[in-house]
Parts: sequence; C-alpha cells; structure tokens
Amino acid sequence: MENKRNLTMLTDFYELTMANGYFASGKQDLVTYFDMFFRKVPDAGGFAVMAGVDQLIEYLKNLKFSKEDIEYLRKRGMSEEFLGYLENFKFSCDVWAVPEGTPIFPGEPIVKVRGPVMQAQFIETMVLLCINHQSLIATKANRIVRASAGRAVMEFGSRRAQGFDGAVYGARAAYIGGCSGTACTISDRMFGIPALGTMAHSWVQLFDSEYEAFKAYAETYPDSCTLLVDTYNTLKSGIPNAIKVFDEVLKPKGFRPKGVRVDSGDITYLSRKMRKMLDEAGYPDCKIVASNSLDEYLIRDMIQQGAQVDSFGVGERLVTSSSSPVFGGVYKLCAVEKDGVVEPRIKISENVAKVTTPGVKNVYRLFDNETGKAIADLITLSDEVVDESKPYELFDPDYTWKRKTIENFTAKPLLVPIFENGECVYESPSIGEIQKYCLEQIDTLWDEVLRFENPHNYYVDLSQKLWDEKHRLISEKKKN
Amino acid sequence: MENKRNLTMLTDFYELTMANGYFASGKQDLVTYFDMFFRKVPDAGGFAVMAGVDQLIEYLKNLKFSKEDIEYLRKRGMSEEFLGYLENFKFSCDVWAVPEGTPIFPGEPIVKVRGPVMQAQFIETMVLLCINHQSLIATKANRIVRASAGRAVMEFGSRRAQGFDGAVYGARAAYIGGCSGTACTISDRMFGIPALGTMAHSWVQLFDSEYEAFKAYAETYPDSCTLLVDTYNTLKSGIPNAIKVFDEVLKPKGFRPKGVRVDSGDITYLSRKMRKMLDEAGYPDCKIVASNSLDEYLIRDMIQQGAQVDSFGVGERLVTSSSSPVFGGVYKLCAVEKDGVVEPRIKISENVAKVTTPGVKNVYRLFDNETGKAIADLITLSDEVVDESKPYELFDPDYTWKRKTIENFTAKPLLVPIFENGECVYESPSIGEIQKYCLEQIDTLWDEVLRFENPHNYYVDLSQKLWDEKHRLISEKKKN
Repeated sequence: MENKRNLTMLTDFYELTMANGYFASGKQDLVTYFDMFFRKVPDAGGFAVMAGVDQLIEYLKNLKFSKEDIEYLRKRGMSEEFLGYLENFKFSCDVWAVPEGTPIFPGEPIVKVRGPVMQAQFIETMVLLCINHQSLIATKANRIVRASAGRAVMEFGSRRAQGFDGAVYGARAAYIGGCSGTACTISDRMFGIPALGTMAHSWVQLFDSEYEAFKAYAETYPDSCTLLVDTYNTLKSGIPNAIKVFDEVLKPKGFRPKGVRVDSGDITYLSRKMRKMLDEAGYPDCKIVASNSLDEYLIRDMIQQGAQVDSFGVGERLVTSSSSPVFGGVYKLCAVEKDGVVEPRIKISENVAKVTTPGVKNVYRLFDNETGKAIADLITLSDEVVDESKPYELFDPDYTWKRKTIENFTAKPLLVPIFENGECVYESPSIGEIQKYCLEQIDTLWDEVLRFENPHNYYVDLSQKLWDEKHRLISEKKKN
Repeated sequence: MENKRNLTMLTDFYELTMANGYFASGKQDLVTYFDMFFRKVPDAGGFAVMAGVDQLIEYLKNLKFSKEDIEYLRKRGMSEEFLGYLENFKFSCDVWAVPEGTPIFPGEPIVKVRGPVMQAQFIETMVLLCINHQSLIATKANRIVRASAGRAVMEFGSRRAQGFDGAVYGARAAYIGGCSGTACTISDRMFGIPALGTMAHSWVQLFDSEYEAFKAYAETYPDSCTLLVDTYNTLKSGIPNAIKVFDEVLKPKGFRPKGVRVDSGDITYLSRKMRKMLDEAGYPDCKIVASNSLDEYLIRDMIQQGAQVDSFGVGERLVTSSSSPVFGGVYKLCAVEKDGVVEPRIKISENVAKVTTPGVKNVYRLFDNETGKAIADLITLSDEVVDESKPYELFDPDYTWKRKTIENFTAKPLLVPIFENGECVYESPSIGEIQKYCLEQIDTLWDEVLRFENPHNYYVDLSQKLWDEKHRLISEKKKN
C-alpha cells in the first residue's frame, strides 16, 4: 500500500516559471539555502506538533518528470535547455528537518534545504504542503487528547475531510498527536493505525425494531459488542434495549458488553443517566462512547460538568482543525553561496512579521538539566557553537532589554539530516514510536505552554551574532 | 494523468463491521435506499455549489477489493462468507446525483443510492468525502468570485491545502465555482484548469538587486512580464524598478508589461498609489494583481474603498474555506424494499434538525416561466407527478400555515442517473462546461439568495404527501 503516486507536478506554476528563468539567466546552479518556518500556532496555542516529514521524504524520493510532463511544459513555452535538464533530473539537495512529533514554535526553521536554486526552489510547494497539513492536524489532535484527560480519542472524520489525503494523512497526523485510533480503514492498511468502528444509525433502521437490530449485532460480535443507542430515544428506548440484549444474548454466552455510543443530544446529561442505568443493570464495565461535533472545548466542559464518557469519537473538528484550519508555514530564501562564500539574504516587508531571519542557521532546544524541562529554543548561525559548560545569555529578539542567563543546560539540535546530496539518509521511526516521542517531548514543556487560552509565550531567541546580522541587513536594505 | 488509485478501503471501519454483520444476519441482499443531503450552507450563505461527482464516479468505477485487502479483513475477524463475496465483488447499485455546478440547498437529496444494503451502505464514506470536499470549495470560490465583481480570481492555495488532494481537487472545485485559474500545475495537467505563476520573493532576493532581478525576468518573459514588487519596499523601490525595466527592456522590443503583483501591506492604499505611478509612467494597461490572505469580505471592502486591483490571487482562505471549513453532508437510510414493497425509514433524534425525511424521493427545481428565476425546490415521493399545467400549492414544512400557490412554472428534476445496476451511465461534462453551467444556474437565483449576510432563505418544500408520510412516521416512532 505504499503511495507510488508521482506528485512531481504538484507544484505552483511559478516554481517552473522561475526555474526556466534561472536557466535563461545562467543561475540554475547557484547554491541556495531555504528555510521553512511558521508564524502563528493554530488556535492561538502555545506550540505546534511537527508532522508530515515521511510524506515529504516519499515525495523527494519519487521526484521525476515524465515525458508527458515535459511535453506539457514545452507547450507552455519552456526552453529546450531547461526541458533537457528536467529529462535527466536528479535530486541533489541537502535537506534537514525537525523529526515528526517534536513540539515546534513560531519563527524557527523546521525544514532547511541547501542546493542548486532550481531544485531548492522547485520543491517549495510540496515541502509546505506536506508539513503544513499534517502539523496542523497533529497539533489539533494533541489539543483534543489533552482536553480528554486520559480518555481515549478516536479520529472519526474521513467523511468530512478536505479530500482523500485529508482523510488518510489526517488520520496519520491525528495518531501522531496522541489519538488512539481512527475510523479510516485505509490508514490502518497503510500505516498500521488501529481502525475501529461498529454501527451507523442505518443498521438500527434496517431492522424491524431497535431491539432486533441490537440482537443481531450482539449475536455477530458477542466479544466486542458496542451499540449505538440514539437512533430513536436514547434513555427510553436505546439503553433499555441495549441492556435487554446484553442480558439475553451476551450473558448466557459469558460475554461482557464493550460499550454504548451516543451521537446526539446533550451528552453530559445523557451520559450520566446512561451510566446510572447501566450500573444498575449490572454493567458498570460497559464503556460510554460519545461523538457529535466534539472538540477540545466541548470535551473539557463536558468532563468538568461530570459527563460519564469513557472515550470520544471526534470527526470534522479534528480532521479539518475547523476552528483554525490553516497552518501557515512559509519557505524563504535565506542565503546564497557565491564563489564559496555564503551571503545571507533577507526579505523586508511592510508587515513587520513578514521580515525574514537571514543566513544559514541551526536551532537548538535548551533543556534545564535539573528539571528536564525545555527552557527556550535558540537560533544561531550555523558556524556558532553553543558552549553548554558556560552560562549563556538569552534575550528577547524584539524587546532586547529582556535578558536572562541560563546555566546547567543541554542544547539539543532540532534539525536532523534527511537528505544528503539528494540521497535519503533518514530512517523514519514507526508511527507508534513517533506518537510516543511526541507525548514525551510535550512532557518537557511547562504547563503554562500547554494552556489552551493565553498560553505562555515560549522563548524562541536569536543568538547575539544572528541578531546583529539580521539588523545589519535590515538597515542596509532600508537605506536603498 | 487519470487517477488510478484504488481507494476502496478509504472507508469508515464501521461500514465493514456492518457489512460483515449483514451477512451474518442474512440481510446482505436487502434492497435499500440512501440519501445524501446537507443541513447548513457554509459561511451561513444562501446556497451551496454541487461538486465532486466526477471523483465519486471514478471511485465507484474502481471499486475492487485486492487480495491484500481481503487478507487484512480476515485478520480483523470477518467471516469467510463475507470475504468470498468481496473477492467477487461487483458494484450493482443505482446512483443518482445532482450535476456538478448546480446550486444546492439544505435538506434536499443531492445523491441518492439504491441497491443491496451491503453495497449501498459501504460507499457512504466516499460519497460524503467526494461531495463534501469539493462542494465546500466550489461554494467558497463562488463567494469570492462574486465579491470580486468581474475581476479575475486565481486559486493560489496549494501550499496551505489539507493534503495533496486538497490542493488538486481544491483547484478543480475552485474552477467550477468561477475562478479563472490556479497556481497548481498538476491540476492543469489533469483537468485542463489554466495554471499560471510568475515569481516568488526568492527570485528577487537571489539577484544582487531588485532591478537586476526584474531585468532578468523581463528578458526571459518579455511577452508575459508580471513583476512582484513588494520584496523590499513597494512604492519606493518595487514600482520604480518595475517601470525602469518596462522602459529599458520591454519598450525597445515593442512589448507591453502584463502586470505587477503586491503580496503585503495595505493593498487598498498601495494599489491606488501604484496605479497612479504606472499611469504616469505610460503603463495604464499594466494590471495590478493582489494576494495576501484574501477572502470575499476583504475583497469586497477593498473594492468599496477604491482599491485599484485588476485580479486577485486567493490562497489559504479559499483552498481550505477557512472561515467555514466543513461541508456537513450526511448519508441516511430512507427506505427498505421488502417483498417488493418499499417501506420508508426515519431517524428520530433529540436534535430536531437531525430527524430525517423518509421514503424514496425526487427533487424538482421550480422555475418561474416569466422571469426564468428559481422559485423553490420541491421534494416529493418518487411516485408523485408534479403537474405543471395546474397551480401548485407550496408550504413551509415547519410553519405549515405559510402557503403560496404558484402558476406558470417549470419543474426541473435535479437528480440525474449516474449508475444503473452498477454501470456508469453518465457522461461528465468538461470542466469548462461545468463552470459555465454553474454561473448560469446561479443567475437563476434571486439576488436576495446571493447575499453574503442574512441571505433570503430559499424554499425547500415537501409535497403534501411526503410531509404527511414523514409526520405519520414521527408519531409512530414517538409512540414506541
């Protein structure tokens, strides 16, 4: 079930216009550096979760222009020199990325690319598409998982996803962010994400009565019997019929019911009544599953109000991150190699937030050796060394008088090589390992960063050298 | 470039649990009817635009369980009888759908399926996924196109789409809704949607100066020269350098510039200044293209404030429909055939809006013969005939005392057959034809329905016979 689609042409047309233009200007082999970074955490949260690296790797491995692609570009007026290059195209960039599952913060490079401008520019659209999509969903999933406070969260959103891949990779990203499984069968087949599902309302409607529908299901699945109880009336019909079937079908065979699911109505109220009825009937171990347009806010409120829900099925609001459906990663040129010398490049903008950080950079996460907690992320120029044996002075890049000296810390580089000279050098962890790593890494963040509303602004600082370089370039460009 | 992916297993796992259960209960061949309908127009608009039928057709044509799929299901505990059926699976349903590009309204069937329950139920996830996604984007695109009041709108959102298909089919749906083209190259290759694009900021940054960057571009593309003018300073550097290059490179060769693009800052203010500078330099024909997180509200305000923009590039807010990112279509059992007799089925719910309309139904759009405008949509039982030669009394299904008699009208059936007994019987129009049809059909709606805020609630009425049937079933179920 590996994805063998050739998505080479899933690229903004301007990448091709520019590539052809590089050839015309003799600049195609100029070595350039690009950074992907993002500016805002979705839902105004305190951090995002990196995801989508595996699909980026797959895309880069499969980069290849078919004869039909080249014919299309010929009709679009591209030069023969350029088309000849595409015919023999071989990816040769170096690529670094922050591993999937890592908490990430605005302004820091999360993907870094070095290579001939034609290639490093060309891959922009897919670098962004892969990482933006899955990071969005992994981030949202983790919010919902945190709100659920230990209860299982299932991803149920395929039918409302934005396209097939929205469902398939959405389920993948949701699992990275901490979901227990998905309803999406193909994601189980492709990635081994546990797929689960029991019945729709139509199952109940198909039979002559709710009781008969429940009975038929219990007879087919005595060892995993979860019944949907809200087709007609949850408390008056659904739960009484479920209990009757548990008694009549499961009990004689020695099976315990697995659960009941409720998909409409006031779930807080209903679940408490349901719990009581099930307990009194001798089924305190029968789980209550809730679905119906849930998200982190509703789940938090339901739990706070004493809802008796054991697990949540979350659909459209997870798979589209509906309250904040865009992850705004960008991909910007930050340096050019000229005669072996690296020249930093900057983009100035009327929008202050759109000014880029120039130069070839590294990112470190600084951990406090005593607590194990993350203190700050630090962006440096790539030739700088962070000496852990000495105190290090951090400062706010906007309000530079805000300073803090840290000691006894470990600086962990966040970017790892994934391609070297066009060859993949990264072995992706399993999806289970990524989820585990994600949850562990989120544990290194202070609670203040995890808050849903007004989270603490985690520090992403520039080294003094990088800050100086950035401001030197701003002054220079502003003079022109 | 046809999409040959087998997406058979892109289905909610409960469809499989139920299918296996139908076999165990001997119900697999029971003939059932399902409707897809939606409950709310995204962005609280007055109508939605149907899209995604072509991808649904492709999916249904390709339905096939591979050996690996069957092996997977065997491991998941499915019965050998069921697996044997899947091995020899042949799709045999009848399917009707509202053609792509048609304005659609809440509560009316937009896809209707008849067939053995195992099949008709199984395809639920993909019916919804295909139609929900593209209808969402086509609807949003049309809002943005209407706000642009005759100016071209380009879909620029691939990099922020929710997955690869979000980009590819998003571009397709945006075109159906009235966009002039896309930045997404593969959508041009696959569907013939005009793909366009010129340069990113990185092109400008790569050269030693903005002037040199513009010059190189103009030399490569003298006949289609559009320059991005906001890398450093739009008015002080971008526009002056653009004019210089138009004068020095294009003019001597006899070419006119095509345009300038601005992607940041206050576009209303900047575009007016830009227009003046370009006019004074002798380039009144040079178009101004604007991008930067636009949507229908910003575009409407910009135009109202006198922005001098000739075309808009719209990205993330279009390709994700970010202000309303979910199209909530559902798929519900409405009837079962028993010994040749069709029995209607209903789903009651604590949420009133979730009560379904039972029975096998048709939908008509009633057009006023004098004005050509759409008066209302009418849902009837499938054996009813709407007699256009006589006055017809419409009534509000909730407030039944609201009544209106219409005369001199034409009743056009909205649902057309797309599969008969599992064979595709529908020839899809070209994407250009769909767009044309869409814009023509929207022209049959009253302006009041087209409003962005508080649009007139277009009537979707039930025939008296259907209304009676629905309320008979509600009473019956409520008695239990």
